Amino acid sequence: MSEIKRIGLLCSGGDSPGMNCAIRSVVRSAINANLEVYGIQRGFSGLLEGNIKELDVSSVGNIIQHGGTILQTSRCPEFHEAETRKEAAHILKRKKIDALIVIGGNGSFNGAYALHTEHGIPMVGIPGTIDNDISGTDYSIGFDTAVQTAIDAVDKIRDTASSHERTFIVEVMGRKSAAIALHVGVCTGAENVVLPSENVNVEEISNDIKRGIKRGKNSSIIIVAEGEKEGLSHRIQEQLKADFELDSHVCILGHIQRGGNPSGQDRFIASGMGYLAIEELLKGNNSFVTAYRNGHVVAAPFDECLEKKSEYLPQYINLVKTLSI
Amino acid sequence: MSEIKRIGLLCSGGDSPGMNCAIRSVVRSAINANLEVYGIQRGFSGLLEGNIKELDVSSVGNIIQHGGTILQTSRCPEFHEAETRKEAAHILKRKKIDALIVIGGNGSFNGAYALHTEHGIPMVGIPGTIDNDISGTDYSIGFDTAVQTAIDAVDKIRDTASSHERTFIVEVMGRKSAAIALHVGVCTGAENVVLPSENVNVEEISNDIKRGIKRGKNSSIIIVAEGEKEGLSHRIQEQLKADFELDSHVCILGHIQRGGNPSGQDRFIASGMGYLAIEELLKGNNSFVTAYRNGHVVAAPFDECLEKKSEYLPQYINLVKTLSI
Amino acid sequence: MSEIKRIGLLCSGGDSPGMNCAIRSVVRSAINANLEVYGIQRGFSGLLEGNIKELDVSSVGNIIQHGGTILQTSRCPEFHEAETRKEAAHILKRKKIDALIVIGGNGSFNGAYALHTEHGIPMVGIPGTIDNDISGTDYSIGFDTAVQTAIDAVDKIRDTASSHERTFIVEVMGRKSAAIALHVGVCTGAENVVLPSENVNVEEISNDIKRGIKRGKNSSIIIVAEGEKEGLSHRIQEQLKADFELDSHVCILGHIQRGGNPSGQDRFIASGMGYLAIEELLKGNNSFVTAYRNGHVVAAPFDECLEKKSEYLPQYINLVKTLSI
Amino acid sequence: MSEIKRIGLLCSGGDSPGMNCAIRSVVRSAINANLEVYGIQRGFSGLLEGNIKELDVSSVGNIIQHGGTILQTSRCPEFHEAETRKEAAHILKRKKIDALIVIGGNGSFNGAYALHTEHGIPMVGIPGTIDNDISGTDYSIGFDTAVQTAIDAVDKIRDTASSHERTFIVEVMGRKSAAIALHVGVCTGAENVVLPSENVNVEEISNDIKRGIKRGKNSSIIIVAEGEKEGLSHRIQEQLKADFELDSHVCILGHIQRGGNPSGQDRFIASGMGYLAIEELLKGNNSFVTAYRNGHVVAAPFDECLEKKSEYLPQYINLVKTLSI
Repeated sequence: MSEIKRIGLLCSGGDSPGMNCAIRSVVRSAINANLEVYGIQRGFSGLLEGNIKELDVSSVGNIIQHGGTILQTSRCPEFHEAETRKEAAHILKRKKIDALIVIGGNGSFNGAYALHTEHGIPMVGIPGTIDNDISGTDYSIGFDTAVQTAIDAVDKIRDTASSHERTFIVEVMGRKSAAIALHVGVCTGAENVVLPSENVNVEEISNDIKRGIKRGKNSSIIIVAEGEKEGLSHRIQEQLKADFELDSHVCILGHIQRGGNPSGQDRFIASGMGYLAIEELLKGNNSFVTAYRNGHVVAAPFDECLEKKSEYLPQYINLVKTLSI
Repeated sequence: MSEIKRIGLLCSGGDSPGMNCAIRSVVRSAINANLEVYGIQRGFSGLLEGNIKELDVSSVGNIIQHGGTILQTSRCPEFHEAETRKEAAHILKRKKIDALIVIGGNGSFNGAYALHTEHGIPMVGIPGTIDNDISGTDYSIGFDTAVQTAIDAVDKIRDTASSHERTFIVEVMGRKSAAIALHVGVCTGAENVVLPSENVNVEEISNDIKRGIKRGKNSSIIIVAEGEKEGLSHRIQEQLKADFELDSHVCILGHIQRGGNPSGQDRFIASGMGYLAIEELLKGNNSFVTAYRNGHVVAAPFDECLEKKSEYLPQYINLVKTLSI
Repeated sequence: MSEIKRIGLLCSGGDSPGMNCAIRSVVRSAINANLEVYGIQRGFSGLLEGNIKELDVSSVGNIIQHGGTILQTSRCPEFHEAETRKEAAHILKRKKIDALIVIGGNGSFNGAYALHTEHGIPMVGIPGTIDNDISGTDYSIGFDTAVQTAIDAVDKIRDTASSHERTFIVEVMGRKSAAIALHVGVCTGAENVVLPSENVNVEEISNDIKRGIKRGKNSSIIIVAEGEKEGLSHRIQEQLKADFELDSHVCILGHIQRGGNPSGQDRFIASGMGYLAIEELLKGNNSFVTAYRNGHVVAAPFDECLEKKSEYLPQYINLVKTLSI
Repeated sequence: MSEIKRIGLLCSGGDSPGMNCAIRSVVRSAINANLEVYGIQRGFSGLLEGNIKELDVSSVGNIIQHGGTILQTSRCPEFHEAETRKEAAHILKRKKIDALIVIGGNGSFNGAYALHTEHGIPMVGIPGTIDNDISGTDYSIGFDTAVQTAIDAVDKIRDTASSHERTFIVEVMGRKSAAIALHVGVCTGAENVVLPSENVNVEEISNDIKRGIKRGKNSSIIIVAEGEKEGLSHRIQEQLKADFELDSHVCILGHIQRGGNPSGQDRFIASGMGYLAIEELLKGNNSFVTAYRNGHVVAAPFDECLEKKSEYLPQYINLVKTLSI
């Protein structure tokens, strides 16, 4: 492999808090090693439009504390086509970009890895998605902040729930991933968690609420992962009313969970991942993901990180149930 | 009027952050003046059930910072009936309670004032509702915290909105009151505010979004007051899609806005109101509301504070529009 | 007076959260009225250096939620000299700036008002200082946020104080102003407040702590305004140990209170002040402060707003003492 | 070993946010397994005073979100003596407590482990200290929250630093431990971190500040671990002024870092540790620490967790330096 001098950097897919920390870490680590970094605006779409400019040391000053991403991001379905990727490879070559770093989820990693295998471009994936559902890594940037945002919301609801004897349904993000809902359930002492994969058993929810009332609880909180079809929380609310005569209130947190200042954990891991990305590229590793495994950031083979991972469900469901008796 | 020795204290209607500060202030001010305070649990309902016990100095320690109310609250529709109020008056007499302090909204004030006029019980109203919609007072406890909670949520959405070019619909509380939506609109730089009183003009919203895109904005945020019929935000979302081909995301903040640690303003005004309640009772004023007027807590006649007030709409709508050009 | 077409805008003195909201409001209100706005970087110092450039609608996008000021600020002692102000007037004339808006405290207002009286430049003062100590206005931008930041800190200390039986001394900002310390004292249920003007009576503090212990409190919190000579909190700590055998812990919040996202109240009032600044200028008022009086933003004569105001001390000290019995 | 029926639970040493989550998890997991739990107030001191009472399911309701510990905590130097521990063993026997769970740091673990080895009492250690300095576990409850609190403070300072060109010294907790200072340094983009172990090189700090100014930074932030001798930050401030003519401002966060609502990570790990404590006790393991290793909560031998651990310093110092160029 010829020497790397100029690195391209983009975010892809849904944004997540902490992406800015990874950007800052990549840029400063690279410049510290006498590399140049070119920021590609708006993901693969921006790459195809040639929306690319150099990032200097100051360009990433004062961004570590802000949510979102200064590079913006986008979804780019046409990147699934080999023809599009060929075009992207040409653009990178023309801009003399020797290696590409992609911050995103497993969908973005698939596009990136195809670009690498088809065109030999050295490629790094940095896991960034609030869903924490990328195979091959225990963690992806943004998850901790998203969970924290939902926890803060439920804590507020607990105040009013305790004052007024109510049932609340709080819908958190997670179309296919149960990770946010499970963590929020454990961390808020929720009485129930509804996962995206399951058929909702409203009777069981109703029984849990009524058992809680009997043992003297004055409120119940049910965490619902949004799932793939909008409106799940409202459907549960209606059924609780129609079939079990239980009133409830719905909160839909939605994209609030994508924003906010990144948490310490997201900043720390993102900083470590950006640093490792440059360190490994300089060692000659030309295809890897900066995965988080067993408490450490390590370079993992790309092909281990291309799937959606299934969650460790049973033990956490059990934990939620045991701790909310 | 015979001398007051024992005061009853209750919260009524929806809870609001800062009620605990008012409770603490009433209890400590009263004890400092050698009065006894009896806390009535769960509002007028609890009064009718005799759910009453003495509050000492320590009972209100370490509560100033917590949302909700240690006395809990409830709605009590049967208090609209004279017969029920007669029963309440008997219970107060039996418990030797010489005066009653009610923390709540204008509905609760109506019940309290009727109890006073019909049975001669010295009565104080302390304005407490997140809606800030009580006539005769510029402020009611909880409004600032509720607005702040919604602002914090919209700030987070701004992060992700800027990263990904999106339109967001954020539904805030306010069945009949526009106050929260207007303040949140001004304070977050929202592009639109939909008020509970109006027929929603989705075409105008669509035009504003498209104008924003044209002038280079990469996101639009629309604040919607929930109104009286659930589901308004989703109806706007559907119409934006069906008629104007605009995608949008919905967040429903719901009861999150009722909870949370009370803000400095809520703590300060609640503390001042509780203090004035005792001071005025001791001066022999036996029927008043601790109203906030022109920046000060004053004793106002009860009958000025019994209505829902209409909002100062036009100038704030204008402010939102001017500042989001 | 000839018609105003181009407005200069600067921040001066210490920065305060909410200045960005005022900047945004001035810029958008002005452009909406077909005026041009020129931002002057780094206060009067920047004016003298000609550090001036036009602000368009987008330049103030996405800043409403951020602390600090995009225009930066500075102290400029040489502006006390008439010669310097003459120079400033020349620069404004050369840049065709017809009116100047200054966001700052009473010191900055004195310089601004002198520039107006000596050179006839239409002049607006927008009160912005966390100390809330400008005469002629009930409020200055930043105060609410600064108080809130200190409250949040003391709330955290309360958690640990309750777990471990301790005395804490928390030093808040306020060299000459007691406003922050008093508000924080009321809002956190502090046991004592030490004001900048007074001789500290450590014996009284010690007595209060010991009385608290006797009545069963497991912690005491003392709020100290920093005063003009650094190190006050540590001196109190040492004296409590040496003379009264009381251990205590010190926190110095310092400049934390100047930063942070502006609170709802700061955003709302700052937005209203910026709007009124333009509205009044267009009406021909060529010398005023956007003061906050009796709950409203109004145009006040400049010469009423040039002093440091003394605080309404006795009643709030009394409130702190009564509520922490 | 005879069957375990009744468990004692206490907190010892400095309190840390998340202790309440561990308490809740122990109590609910135990009751769910038909065990009884007795809460011991105020640590080993409270044990010696017999300050013990049963905890039922409701006693730990609504505490998961609060900092501090409902059991309070204390330091108990006399527990270093065998005689004292003998007395404690008697008291436990008299109260029919079959096993003890101690939440605290390595000092508390030493006392607990001695009680186990000398008197055969089944013993569990749950790591709880904000310093994260217990050997044998990657994590101790409270560290994430403490780091987050300091990060939030520094973020606020960044706002004002950027507006006004200043140098700030922020002192964080850590008498012997560098962990908080290092994490805060990485996560806030600090320009320098001063560790408790080192001789402070103020000249190097001065050079870094001046280099930053030269490359266009308008502020510098230095994170200082408090160390064992109070006043370190002020000494650095004075030396920067005297020897290098650099003005700076000092913030001392102090015990703020011990309080606050526990973060998601602290709640999650604390919940898992409490659950494992009961699970392992029921399996017959009668001496272990619920350690966090490689991303999982596991039962670790007590004697691996009795030391203060030294930090992984060099690589994190290097990270701070590289990322703040």
